[in-house]
Amino acid sequence: MRFFEDIAVGEKFDLGRVTFTAEAIKAFATRFDPQPFHIDEAAAKRSHFGALCASGWHTASVWMRLLVAYQRREDDALRARGEPVAALGPSPGFRELKWLKPVYVDDTITYATEVIETRASNSRPGWGLMTIRNTGTNQRGEPVISFVSVAFIERRKKPAP
Amino acid sequence: MRFFEDIAVGEKFDLGRVTFTAEAIKAFATRFDPQPFHIDEAAAKRSHFGALCASGWHTASVWMRLLVAYQRREDDALRARGEPVAALGPSPGFRELKWLKPVYVDDTITYATEVIETRASNSRPGWGLMTIRNTGTNQRGEPVISFVSVAFIERRKKPAP
Repeated sequence: MRFFEDIAVGEKFDLGRVTFTAEAIKAFATRFDPQPFHIDEAAAKRSHFGALCASGWHTASVWMRLLVAYQRREDDALRARGEPVAALGPSPGFRELKWLKPVYVDDTITYATEVIETRASNSRPGWGLMTIRNTGTNQRGEPVISFVSVAFIERRKKPAP
Repeated sequence: MRFFEDIAVGEKFDLGRVTFTAEAIKAFATRFDPQPFHIDEAAAKRSHFGALCASGWHTASVWMRLLVAYQRREDDALRARGEPVAALGPSPGFRELKWLKPVYVDDTITYATEVIETRASNSRPGWGLMTIRNTGTNQRGEPVISFVSVAFIERRKKPAP
């Protein structure tokens, strides 16, 4: 992770894309969201979704996986250039999560993130807060998920105690 | 699921409780949130969390599993009494998700839900919208997760077309 001071509002990150296979959809849903339209093709066909589709929590969790991978690549690139790597702190949470369209079998979702706000933390000296808007878009260009999240990021210069 | 008309604001549901084992924490995080403090005890000890703890998406996904199980029990009870079962429609999303405390190994989280708003759907005749506040509380009585979600529920009497 770059330091808080090096992150600008308006920056966009392409987190990559994932194709949701029937196997992956059923594996997640069997464990965490075993509703018929997430685990059984025939039942899904009869449901309001019309076909097997991913649990919304699955679509969201894949975003997390891609974000972690993105940050790992960024950390590796910083280290390769001999630059220091900032710590990413805990996330206080999320807001406005919207599941806008179902994610069906073999849909490919492209995840992207945009920085919409940065501010120094009052409660944690040495840390800043970054607010990001996260989106997933399918291969037809339709948004399927959108949410806003907040994370603590280490500051480059610690304020005087 | 009971029908929309049978659900009242203020109703509370106890969804049950789950103990987060190290094995389950690592299994989820390896797949979806492979940050050191979710997959490696030694690295977690050195992190700001101080010990291995669950991915926030894991804590949220377990809520979904308990909700589905609760609804299944309710459907079974309705059928056993010979009563009709209402369909649960898609969820448009949730808001104000807060991870309030880390969920550490062997913490037992009790999940509960309270109906905070009901209204007929304008966009989908025959359906109502239920807004619920969901919480997870650990064995020390500390809230660890809180969010508000919305779901479509079938109405008992379809309005005239």
